[in-house]
Amino acid sequence: MSGQFARLSLNTMTTKGWTLREAVEATAAAGLPAIGLWRDRVAEAGVDAAAKMVRDNGLRVSSLCRGGFLTGVDDEGAALDDNRRAIDEAATLGTPELVIVAGGIPDRDLPGARARLADRLARLVPYAAERDVRLALEPLHPMFCADRAVISTLAQALDLAAPHPARSVGVVVDTFHIWWDPNLAESVAAAGAAGRISAFQICDWLVPMTPDPLVSRGMMGDGVIDFGAIAALVRDAGYTGDVEVEIFNETVWATEGSTVLEVMKQRYRDLVAPALTG
Amino acid sequence: MSGQFARLSLNTMTTKGWTLREAVEATAAAGLPAIGLWRDRVAEAGVDAAAKMVRDNGLRVSSLCRGGFLTGVDDEGAALDDNRRAIDEAATLGTPELVIVAGGIPDRDLPGARARLADRLARLVPYAAERDVRLALEPLHPMFCADRAVISTLAQALDLAAPHPARSVGVVVDTFHIWWDPNLAESVAAAGAAGRISAFQICDWLVPMTPDPLVSRGMMGDGVIDFGAIAALVRDAGYTGDVEVEIFNETVWATEGSTVLEVMKQRYRDLVAPALTG
Repeated sequence: MSGQFARLSLNTMTTKGWTLREAVEATAAAGLPAIGLWRDRVAEAGVDAAAKMVRDNGLRVSSLCRGGFLTGVDDEGAALDDNRRAIDEAATLGTPELVIVAGGIPDRDLPGARARLADRLARLVPYAAERDVRLALEPLHPMFCADRAVISTLAQALDLAAPHPARSVGVVVDTFHIWWDPNLAESVAAAGAAGRISAFQICDWLVPMTPDPLVSRGMMGDGVIDFGAIAALVRDAGYTGDVEVEIFNETVWATEGSTVLEVMKQRYRDLVAPALTG
Repeated sequence: MSGQFARLSLNTMTTKGWTLREAVEATAAAGLPAIGLWRDRVAEAGVDAAAKMVRDNGLRVSSLCRGGFLTGVDDEGAALDDNRRAIDEAATLGTPELVIVAGGIPDRDLPGARARLADRLARLVPYAAERDVRLALEPLHPMFCADRAVISTLAQALDLAAPHPARSVGVVVDTFHIWWDPNLAESVAAAGAAGRISAFQICDWLVPMTPDPLVSRGMMGDGVIDFGAIAALVRDAGYTGDVEVEIFNETVWATEGSTVLEVMKQRYRDLVAPALTG
């Protein structure tokens, strides 16, 4: 795989209506080299079958979404078990990057939730390291702090990662979640310098937001994010990995998958790719 | 005015259905010492009449909301004029604090919008200083970065304020906007050390959010914010000013104003006041 799409990856959430097989075959047919997988699609196919399917179609897995949800009060054992399974799945799928969504606050104690997260991350690192899987901490937009992720900025993710080897704990740069950050340039540079950029995920910020903020993500170009500027930061930070398009959006989901793939390729080519190599 | 409500202020937006006179008289009757005013209510009454009304009822004005919206491309003159009028109004009302909501991004150029904001702020400072009015920069939650405020954190607001005297440019600590910030403790302490805490505004973060994030604010205790923890930070930062309850919420707005005032007093007494003096 080469040329202008040599780093473009389809995240299965973007074409939510497709089975894993449909997504894998369409991604390969579209000339893309990589696919980002969600665990629900992998589970439907079975992890060994999924790994074979991806391999047989000549694709690599840019990341597996997701582990995490490590902030609960009463469910530590179950949460750790589920994350170990996710690490095993990532290893079987041959992807080095397991995206970790931290989890929210089960009560009003935000520092407590963050402390539990740090403790449990430390317990998972050796298991992940043994399997050559990196735990890719994803800062989520601060509007998800209560219910989804107590990691809200790249700087905070890097602080959490710092005690652990760069090969075992990284961070995810997702445009939707971090475009507003006044310290974005410094944080992306720091993530690159630390060798910790696990993934670069892209989608746009729509104005106005949709009523459910979870599905307020847009196709690149449909919102207000300057993809060229952020791609240049990621480039200057030394990141050479895949660029994964992950869009949660009811309109995109209602659109025929092959059309979504085509639009995604055009927008990537026009808005993102030039800055990646520029 | 003394006792447990000696620092509690009603922001007129919380009892949106009330005229200025209704809000002022109810605030005084409820034994509160202060009121936070929005300019629409002031305009309805006329600024001189509003000032007299507040004074005659023995209240002080904790802040005036709002100036700002200084990020536009084509409307610089009009925006500066409007802010000068807001400064004049604050001076007439006898409040030292004019809340500034920065404005969003008119295009995809976030650094450009921030640069225009800094330039225009600098142009307003002398005018404000001559009238003993402080421009109180309010970081808004990052979900409003595109359409309302390119200032998203206290640290960023403090950086913007830094070139100007502390008596002329301050920052607003609003629980709804900043509760998630991983650097909250450091930033509140820094704001206090710089003598720049202009206002402490409180309301809660509801889970789930309402479909319109603008009105997703809740009465203290109805959401997930730890008011005791944040009030303690503000106390430790040396802030001794008013605590203004500003709630944008359709259910609160549909509730009889006197009931809202009573609930607000109870929640303040139970959740906020102990930490302010503790």
